[in-house]
This record gives sequence, C-alpha cells and structure tokens, in this order.
Amino acid sequence: MRRYAKRDFPTNKTRRHLEPGPIVLISSAWKGETNIMTLGWHMMLGFTPALVATYIWDANHSYQMVRRSKECVINVPEAHLLDTAIRIGNCTGGEIDKFAEFGLTADPAEKVAAPLIRECYANFECRLHDARLIRGHGIFVWEVVKAHVAASPKNPRTCHYRGDGEFMLGGDAVKRRRLFTPGMLAD
Amino acid sequence: MRRYAKRDFPTNKTRRHLEPGPIVLISSAWKGETNIMTLGWHMMLGFTPALVATYIWDANHSYQMVRRSKECVINVPEAHLLDTAIRIGNCTGGEIDKFAEFGLTADPAEKVAAPLIRECYANFECRLHDARLIRGHGIFVWEVVKAHVAASPKNPRTCHYRGDGEFMLGGDAVKRRRLFTPGMLAD
Repeated sequence: MRRYAKRDFPTNKTRRHLEPGPIVLISSAWKGETNIMTLGWHMMLGFTPALVATYIWDANHSYQMVRRSKECVINVPEAHLLDTAIRIGNCTGGEIDKFAEFGLTADPAEKVAAPLIRECYANFECRLHDARLIRGHGIFVWEVVKAHVAASPKNPRTCHYRGDGEFMLGGDAVKRRRLFTPGMLAD
Repeated sequence: MRRYAKRDFPTNKTRRHLEPGPIVLISSAWKGETNIMTLGWHMMLGFTPALVATYIWDANHSYQMVRRSKECVINVPEAHLLDTAIRIGNCTGGEIDKFAEFGLTADPAEKVAAPLIRECYANFECRLHDARLIRGHGIFVWEVVKAHVAASPKNPRTCHYRGDGEFMLGGDAVKRRRLFTPGMLAD
C-alpha cells in the first residue's frame, strides 16, 4: 500500500481536491464506533469558510453517525484504492468494522473525533456548518476546519463514478493561468 | 470545431455525465436574451426524477435569468472547448452576447426555452424543481426533463477545475461491474 507524507493544507484551497468531483470516503465516529462510506454526491459551496455540501441518503448507516456527531472526515482515495472504495460502498457498517475489514488505518484527526484514513492522499476534517437542509433534502453543509494533503503526487489519480459499475480516472493536468486575471487566482 | 451526432439519452442516467464532476456551461433565456455561464459547483441529488443541484452566486448575470425563467440547460464541453469555457466564465453576459462572442451555436431545446449549446457533447434540459434553497443558500435544485448526448466519443474528455487556473482532464475509463450486485447496476 502506498504511503503518503502529508502536510497541513490551507482549507481555503479545498476546491483543488474536491471540485474535480472524485469519489470520496466519509469517515465518522459516534459512541465508540467508527464507520466509512463511499460518496460521489458532493459540491463546493464556499472558500472562506471552506464549505462543502454532501448528499447522504438516510438509509446509510453513516447518516445517523454524522448527523449525531455533527462531524466527519472527507478522505480522497487514489485509483489503487478503487476496488476498496467500491466494496466499502457496497456493504453496511451496521454489520462490520470497515477499517478492520478493508485493512485501512484510522489516524487521529486534530479537530474532530472522526478518524483520518491514512491510506487516502487527502483528508479534510469537517464540522457540520448548517443542519437545516438535512431533513427533507439529505444535504449536509460542512465546514472544512483542518486539511491534510500529501505533498506528492502533485496530480493524484482520483476516481470518478459514472454509474453502472463504470469509472473515469483522473487524467492530464493542464494550466491556463494566463486566461485568468491575477485577482481571480488569488483565492 | 468538432461536430456531434446526438441522441436522446435516458434522464435517469444523467449521473454518467455529471457525477464525474466536469465543469459545465449553463445556458439560459429570459425576455429575448440568452446567456451562458461556466460552473463547477454541482452535484447529483436523485435518479428518478433526475435531480441536480447547482450553486450559483447571486452576483452572476445568469442568477436572475435562471431564477426568473425557472429553466436552464446544463451543457458539458470537452477539452477542446476549455479555453472558451474559461473565457465565458471570466466575462459577464450583462455586456455581451456570449453565443456570438464565442462562436457557439444556440440550438432549440425541446422542453425549455433556454438553448442547447451545439458544440457541447451533452445537453441536459432542466426545469427548476425546488426553489426553496436559492435564497440563503444559492442552491438551485433542477430536474432534468430531457437529455441529448453524443453517441461518440464513448469516454468524453471532460474538464475538471482545481482552482488557481489549473485543470484536470478526464482520463482512462475503467469497469468494475463485477464488484456490484446486479440490482445495483439496474438504475
């Protein structure tokens, strides 16, 4: 399994890793239990504070865990973890310990009780920012309060779901800074 | 400019093209005016009906156009349109006709007044499904009421924004149908 040397990452640049739309692993903790779910339905909502929305179906075991604890960690896997991410998404934490079952390591987070998944290249510690859209919409609005990202690789090979068992992997990186005004790049 | 032969596409498979997280072009029409904006903050919310959430900042010229018309088209460009998509995002439709300015073709949609952008490989005609999250959250919840997708390429090379003028392009396609139960692939 690949090992990452992670560094603190500025939360206001969270978009770099989530806006491209990868599947992520949501880790949670509640009353001595931890869980992990696989999720593709998320979007950025702001930079400062760094806000991220996730849609979580209320039938998921993680739904009650993140709703009650008001915390989670958004972990981003690379392609070598794709099969693991799929298997995590296709079983329920009500029956098994997903960290043990899938050979993942729960590292302590700094600001939340939910664990970081060591084997993911990026970890975003989140606190619930707005609970009003949960009931009725299933939308959790999170504030990223601490971020840890591997210094390398610079262009991680993320996994993007198309449905029906098919995925797209992250491809080439391209720069177009010349098409933006300096003020637009300053965020 | 590449030409696409588009076909009707099942709306309940919209995720195939939006869930991977590409930047999209939102076209709109209101009182004889059309407009286009570039958008990366979107997520799926459901299959049947096909629901998509978009975050649109109220300072955007398109904000009032889609709010008032209650319609839009979500158009997905491939990488050859990346520079155009960036330029569209960095100017305002209050001053110019973006179709004329950027050499794009407005094709008539079937179910909404907003035009399809011919040069995009996929077009999703949308009606506003839920207006309650607009004020206060900037979240529009759309129902895809008609979809048009090019038969080829099968794996379009989409553009994914990382911020700071940097993009990731869509890469390899991988299939993992064997890791899903048949019921999970039926959607």
